[in-house]
Amino acid sequence: MDVTRTTPAFRALRAGLKSPVGFVPTMGFLHDGHLSLVRLARERCATVVASIYVNPTQFAPTEDLASYPRDLDRDLRLLDAEGVDCVFAPEEGAGLYAEEHNTWIEIPNLTSRLEGASRPTHFRGVATIVTKLFHIVEPDVAVFGQKDAQQALVIARLIRDLDFDIDLVLGPTAREPDGLAMSSRNTYLTPQERKTATVLHRALRLAERMYRDGERNAEVLQREMTTLLAAEPKARAEYVSVASVEDLSELETVDGKALVSLAARVGTTRLIDNMVLPPGESLL
Amino acid sequence: MDVTRTTPAFRALRAGLKSPVGFVPTMGFLHDGHLSLVRLARERCATVVASIYVNPTQFAPTEDLASYPRDLDRDLRLLDAEGVDCVFAPEEGAGLYAEEHNTWIEIPNLTSRLEGASRPTHFRGVATIVTKLFHIVEPDVAVFGQKDAQQALVIARLIRDLDFDIDLVLGPTAREPDGLAMSSRNTYLTPQERKTATVLHRALRLAERMYRDGERNAEVLQREMTTLLAAEPKARAEYVSVASVEDLSELETVDGKALVSLAARVGTTRLIDNMVLPPGESLL
Repeated sequence: MDVTRTTPAFRALRAGLKSPVGFVPTMGFLHDGHLSLVRLARERCATVVASIYVNPTQFAPTEDLASYPRDLDRDLRLLDAEGVDCVFAPEEGAGLYAEEHNTWIEIPNLTSRLEGASRPTHFRGVATIVTKLFHIVEPDVAVFGQKDAQQALVIARLIRDLDFDIDLVLGPTAREPDGLAMSSRNTYLTPQERKTATVLHRALRLAERMYRDGERNAEVLQREMTTLLAAEPKARAEYVSVASVEDLSELETVDGKALVSLAARVGTTRLIDNMVLPPGESLL
Repeated sequence: MDVTRTTPAFRALRAGLKSPVGFVPTMGFLHDGHLSLVRLARERCATVVASIYVNPTQFAPTEDLASYPRDLDRDLRLLDAEGVDCVFAPEEGAGLYAEEHNTWIEIPNLTSRLEGASRPTHFRGVATIVTKLFHIVEPDVAVFGQKDAQQALVIARLIRDLDFDIDLVLGPTAREPDGLAMSSRNTYLTPQERKTATVLHRALRLAERMYRDGERNAEVLQREMTTLLAAEPKARAEYVSVASVEDLSELETVDGKALVSLAARVGTTRLIDNMVLPPGESLL
């Protein structure tokens, strides 16, 4: 497995890679969710490239950039074991950004709601780093996780609107045995909070059961999920949403596809989760 | 010469093109300025691609999108005569943009002054279409004209900040025998206005002479150019600027490189021109 730390070093390698090239961008501290995306790329592509970069521009000044968990050596062992061909792991700090970086990709109508409401510069940071990485890695296939559903919609729009010649593949959310969506941020949880954290998944399952029993009123689904969350004293809901997958506007009635998503603080840790209705439908 | 009108058709062609591929994006109605850029690409590259597309997103609703001059047949003959290999000329109207296009490239600090001051959405339209075209054409070399100096700086920043693997080449401003910078918009001028229009170039030459005579006070250069323009009753200056090539901020003293630029209405036609100081220095 080749490990490169600079753009010129990666580019020198890129010319010799067999097509199609599959790409899994990550912020490292890998868990089985990331590795399942690597496996999806491995199935589809002659070459698999993964990147590890804690992208500073998608963190607000008040967020956890400094404390975000990192373990490059462990990440490299895990990727090697999955048969990844190349890892692009730029140095942090200045890293991938010019000192006076001043170019931003904005996707206004998909980024003002849900995650974007409390994190107003998050998605421009995501869209910008993904564009930079796409230009460096030049993948044929890019694999993202459905765990970050709004991000997946943003990337799909980015690829369409800017004519990237890249196939987007979404991997399903990997979960712990008790249903908690895997996330590098789960390491922040105390043992007690870790138990509480399953409430996000329990709320989604409640909505799924209600949907299967015929409930189509989005407000009712949303209210019941909110009530379940409110019953957990250690959890504080940030949003509970039943939204259109087209523009993320809140639905009144679930008569087509819907994205059910929620964000909650458990202790000080912010967690997100989501599912698509009808069950089994793909997000894109 | 291959002429393609859709992105899939161009992509089918692209795979077979010999590297390096040089690219000259245009809005058509070609003049010798465009053709000089084609010749620069021809000198440097095994394959030359030109695009012709009157990009709607760089025009404000009040501007001349509808009346912008077009003559595709003539353009194709001129490009063929210069040995261009492929022309990408997407249909207008919906053209290159999805119906609900909603992704924009913003380069805030380079686009608020000069042209950007009176055309606040112009450069996001330029940066966005150029990004789209770069993704479709996948050039190794892109050739732009120095006539649009601020645009050239924006493209240089775009390439650097988003890690495009593209060499940017700037061609010098092509001029009519009396000094008027070539522009597709010159066709709007009445014969009387056409004579008046040389005042932009005369103002630049005045500043150049003063610089050669030792004048380094930017405000004095700017004032003398403004006075020259004010003496032409048919011309109305929009801005006269002596600015840093780094961030386009106005200079007090010309002690390094400077971009001297101006915009003026002649009748109803808006014209621009520029030069770099010291004379002979390149903009980038």
